[in-house]
Amino acid sequence: MKDQTKKRIEHVDILTMDQQNSCYQDGEIRISGDTIEYVGPRPGSPETRRPDGPAKEQQAADTAADRAEGDDTEVLDGRGMLALPGFVNAHCHVSMTLFRGYADNLSLWEWLSKRIWPLEDQLQPDDAYWLSLLGAAEMISAGVTTFSDMYLFMSETARAVSDCGMRAVLGRGLSGPDQDTERRHREVEDLYGWQKDPRGRIHMTIAPHAVYTCAPDYLKTCRQLAEKYQVGIHIHLCETEKEVADCVREYGKTPVKLLHDVGLLELPVTAAHCVHLTHEDMDLLDAHQVKVVHCPSSNMKLASGFAPVDDFLDRGMTVALGTDGAASNNNLSIWKEMSLASLIAKGHSGDAKALPAQKAMEMATIQGAKALMLEKEIGSLEPGKKADIQLIDFKKPHYFPREDPVVHLVYSGDSADVNTVMIDGQMVMKDRNLTTIDLDKVYREVERIAHRML
Amino acid sequence: MKDQTKKRIEHVDILTMDQQNSCYQDGEIRISGDTIEYVGPRPGSPETRRPDGPAKEQQAADTAADRAEGDDTEVLDGRGMLALPGFVNAHCHVSMTLFRGYADNLSLWEWLSKRIWPLEDQLQPDDAYWLSLLGAAEMISAGVTTFSDMYLFMSETARAVSDCGMRAVLGRGLSGPDQDTERRHREVEDLYGWQKDPRGRIHMTIAPHAVYTCAPDYLKTCRQLAEKYQVGIHIHLCETEKEVADCVREYGKTPVKLLHDVGLLELPVTAAHCVHLTHEDMDLLDAHQVKVVHCPSSNMKLASGFAPVDDFLDRGMTVALGTDGAASNNNLSIWKEMSLASLIAKGHSGDAKALPAQKAMEMATIQGAKALMLEKEIGSLEPGKKADIQLIDFKKPHYFPREDPVVHLVYSGDSADVNTVMIDGQMVMKDRNLTTIDLDKVYREVERIAHRML
Repeated sequence: MKDQTKKRIEHVDILTMDQQNSCYQDGEIRISGDTIEYVGPRPGSPETRRPDGPAKEQQAADTAADRAEGDDTEVLDGRGMLALPGFVNAHCHVSMTLFRGYADNLSLWEWLSKRIWPLEDQLQPDDAYWLSLLGAAEMISAGVTTFSDMYLFMSETARAVSDCGMRAVLGRGLSGPDQDTERRHREVEDLYGWQKDPRGRIHMTIAPHAVYTCAPDYLKTCRQLAEKYQVGIHIHLCETEKEVADCVREYGKTPVKLLHDVGLLELPVTAAHCVHLTHEDMDLLDAHQVKVVHCPSSNMKLASGFAPVDDFLDRGMTVALGTDGAASNNNLSIWKEMSLASLIAKGHSGDAKALPAQKAMEMATIQGAKALMLEKEIGSLEPGKKADIQLIDFKKPHYFPREDPVVHLVYSGDSADVNTVMIDGQMVMKDRNLTTIDLDKVYREVERIAHRML
Repeated sequence: MKDQTKKRIEHVDILTMDQQNSCYQDGEIRISGDTIEYVGPRPGSPETRRPDGPAKEQQAADTAADRAEGDDTEVLDGRGMLALPGFVNAHCHVSMTLFRGYADNLSLWEWLSKRIWPLEDQLQPDDAYWLSLLGAAEMISAGVTTFSDMYLFMSETARAVSDCGMRAVLGRGLSGPDQDTERRHREVEDLYGWQKDPRGRIHMTIAPHAVYTCAPDYLKTCRQLAEKYQVGIHIHLCETEKEVADCVREYGKTPVKLLHDVGLLELPVTAAHCVHLTHEDMDLLDAHQVKVVHCPSSNMKLASGFAPVDDFLDRGMTVALGTDGAASNNNLSIWKEMSLASLIAKGHSGDAKALPAQKAMEMATIQGAKALMLEKEIGSLEPGKKADIQLIDFKKPHYFPREDPVVHLVYSGDSADVNTVMIDGQMVMKDRNLTTIDLDKVYREVERIAHRML
């Protein structure tokens, strides 16, 4: 039976991130089960919105009628709070929380080959469950409600996602072909089982790691897998100069051209990084509506370079934000990526107008949803969408005096300003207390794993 | 009579930032009045430190003896906490909190001339008091215990600093000569009065704004003022390409050479920004032991450029961190500057080894103290230094699993992880509650000022 529990957030300022960019002061959000029913002015309150949009009087009246019936609605007082869509972390390796702070001051290739890959061989499936929960706890605490992940033991990550109530798009990281290819494909089949979960919070991608770990013929196999399961592709693309140079030397073409030539760009593709691109690469990505995930912290920390984000945005391409794994960031906060994306776009281009706050906020929300092909479900606060909501404590010194809330959130905001988080209508954090994760137990298990491995 | 109140922080992990880079697990800090008396292992506990340093057994024994006497020591339980020196914000304009979010997406010159300067003419002295308190609240909440400021109405900022218990180095921003020069010099004299305050938390600088707002002869006047009051110089230097190009066109020399030729570099100089430098400029700054304040957020947001921080550090120069004003940042968090400094140094240089976490942490603490010539008083946790301490809540998901605490703090840490702050031995924030600032009143006053002016 479908959950019809009703919730109402009253007296809350709202940043909807809908197409009209509607905002409400002292507004109201009504939720039924997992779905948003109403977003707008409170019944009887003078409407304040920006910019002009359709009148909400009738809906407000309906709300009043509904309220009069007297029901068992759970009411949250949103005074001093700002409601915005839960953030989307569109490129993550959540179990890599294990390696947080373990391999600093290395370039991508050294970092992978000398530190990360040797350790990954020792990971056990059960480890991934606890490490995923640690990452989930960090993400929920920072207002992330959906993440897209590519890694090992993804059924364990799916189990963690299912238990903690997050929304996720999961892909078993694929490379090869080699002696483990068949085993990995069985893991894909297992993961697909989670996608059939009736609550629908878990989605799947086919996730070939990169052109330097997947042979061209194997990329074709990945295409067939994606067609078999009717899902999209998640891949690392043009992250470093070395990746591009090696690909050109080996195959006589750029990684983008290679993906194009094996037919992968015919499918929906979400490509992480996209730092080093030729003009032709950019045209190909644009023409095939590839969704880009910008990972500024990771690109800075591994010294990979500056992605041409403003160029993507000028073309109207979809650009989301990703933290990458905690081993190369070293956190899972989209707040930091949002701010960093805007700051380094300005600093690198020498143009203070580059990537304004509004664009950065879109990348963290609705563009993130589009990158995961979930824009009909999430990414903005609108009736009919899933109730994935973060409530920000806006009574902090760094939010005064009051100005454009988007500017304040992007440049002054902090993960810890997130007070309450709802995913799929379920309260997963209230007044900064996680309700679905036993943090102390997670800490103990993660310390046990780290002690065994590091 | 000197305050001799005793405090003890027990069972706390400690990052001293002393010359040996001593760290203690489950350690203890003892404070008498405004001064640290002891930092080290708890009496009876096995000592854990990194790297090797002098034995602490005798001091630990003394502590035990002292404790046996039975006294009215205030005891803080530091379990789960990490103690580190309060951060130093070495370049700020605290009253500019008024303009937070008011002038985005502009380069420095447009930002100053079109938005900021016209409004500054309307500022009243009393405004600066409330705006300074707002900034102080934000800084204390983020673990900043000392800041260096240059702006208008600095006696009002001094009053706010005195009231809220922070430590500050204040300079009346000077430009000219013009019809207001004499009035500004009277304000310098007033500010000097605050330096004589017996508690000694307020220091003064002479603060010529920049070479584009001070004529060469007036810079000589500033030198005379600094000599008269026996204080150092605080100045903006080589922030933008435009500043350098204009200076070369007008005076036939770079801003650094100009400061040198008017004799200003003979004095102790703290120079903010230092983004655009020739090799000769760098040699001059180095030879004259000029202290650099790196302001990465502001330099990114105003698209000023990337300061050659690694070059400064390679030369062994003092490099501190500054937020600049909230109008160009838009917050006052040294946590963000620390992380950003390291990330963009790696990203911009293409060298993942650039500016490692340890260096960034030094810039936020002991290097900050050196930049303000206060290294004998603050910047590390050592007996004899002032008790300026922040306690970090280290039981957050982003601090697990345990690794090098400095790496965790720099790349994963957040302003809001600061749980408790002590300045000069006085508790100014406990369990995230500010004890010296009435936040609601500050918010009301700041909103009143913003409503009048913006």
